Amino acid sequence: MKELKEAILTRGKAINQDVLLVDSFLNHQVDPVLMCHVGEAFADFFRDKAIDRIVTIESSGIAPATFTAYALGLPLVILKKQTSRIMKGDLIQTAVRSFTKGTEYQLTVKREFLPGNERVLFIDDFLASGEAAFGAIRLVEEAGAKVAGIGIVIEKSFQSGRERLEALGIPVCSLARVRAMGPDGIEFVD
Amino acid sequence: MKELKEAILTRGKAINQDVLLVDSFLNHQVDPVLMCHVGEAFADFFRDKAIDRIVTIESSGIAPATFTAYALGLPLVILKKQTSRIMKGDLIQTAVRSFTKGTEYQLTVKREFLPGNERVLFIDDFLASGEAAFGAIRLVEEAGAKVAGIGIVIEKSFQSGRERLEALGIPVCSLARVRAMGPDGIEFVD
Repeated sequence: MKELKEAILTRGKAINQDVLLVDSFLNHQVDPVLMCHVGEAFADFFRDKAIDRIVTIESSGIAPATFTAYALGLPLVILKKQTSRIMKGDLIQTAVRSFTKGTEYQLTVKREFLPGNERVLFIDDFLASGEAAFGAIRLVEEAGAKVAGIGIVIEKSFQSGRERLEALGIPVCSLARVRAMGPDGIEFVD
Repeated sequence: MKELKEAILTRGKAINQDVLLVDSFLNHQVDPVLMCHVGEAFADFFRDKAIDRIVTIESSGIAPATFTAYALGLPLVILKKQTSRIMKGDLIQTAVRSFTKGTEYQLTVKREFLPGNERVLFIDDFLASGEAAFGAIRLVEEAGAKVAGIGIVIEKSFQSGRERLEALGIPVCSLARVRAMGPDGIEFVD
């Protein structure tokens, strides 16, 4: 996606070979027009894939996932990293480790919001080693549903996430694929 | 907003006199069409108020705030409840207590995403005692900007938030104002 790659090059910053800072348009300050176009790009890719529901993880995936859900006319479910005392009922949980942030969290969803037998599209801001996506897959499968597609805003193609997900037979649509990055710049796949 | 009130009545649930569960369309499962209409309603209300920037708090405010920002053609800034080791630079922080959830968090923003002298519209899913809104106001004022409006999806009008915010001279637009609720139902103001 040309507009996204241009935003990464002009408004993003490679902190080092692993960390790409895009908090000026994606995950702290948000460019809503770009996010709308990101959502429409995911919708175009997955429109004929018989998707029933969009799922994302709070909070950086919410803006692109909301526009995707709107464009496809489907409900969105936000998987939670934190529970609260008003979150009760039949919960499904799985532990997820974020290597970039150095944290671990209990990814949580109410079972009632993941009906069995549905085909789910998982949307997230980044794909690196795939830990978050695999956490989402575990929750969706525990609910008796199936992850039928994965939409990623920025893929770190030098990490193993895409390879591991494609090995499961899940189509992955990444709108920007970073081959390498560092002080000399950011290089995309293709 | 009629469509929102109907969603609250038909898909929400008053757990008790204080807690209104709307996780089937607002903050866990999300109805993107309703959220788009919510964003457009805020945009209509604040369009002539010379707003420069939308601000919300992760993560339940993001969907309505993203659509508001899109409808007004303005950038959105997500105030963070959690920092990470890749969030560096000149940060502004303030402690906020959530009475509903029984938690306290450090509301955090990078100063570069709150330019001084701007007029900010703060969007959130709920207004109760106003603690989150006052936290956002402290951050915005510390940055040298001004909260020029507050857009709330659901106001608990039996709590003091609106009164305290209006005492500061800030216009508050609440799309649904709950006067009282409990096992017998949910009653709106007006």
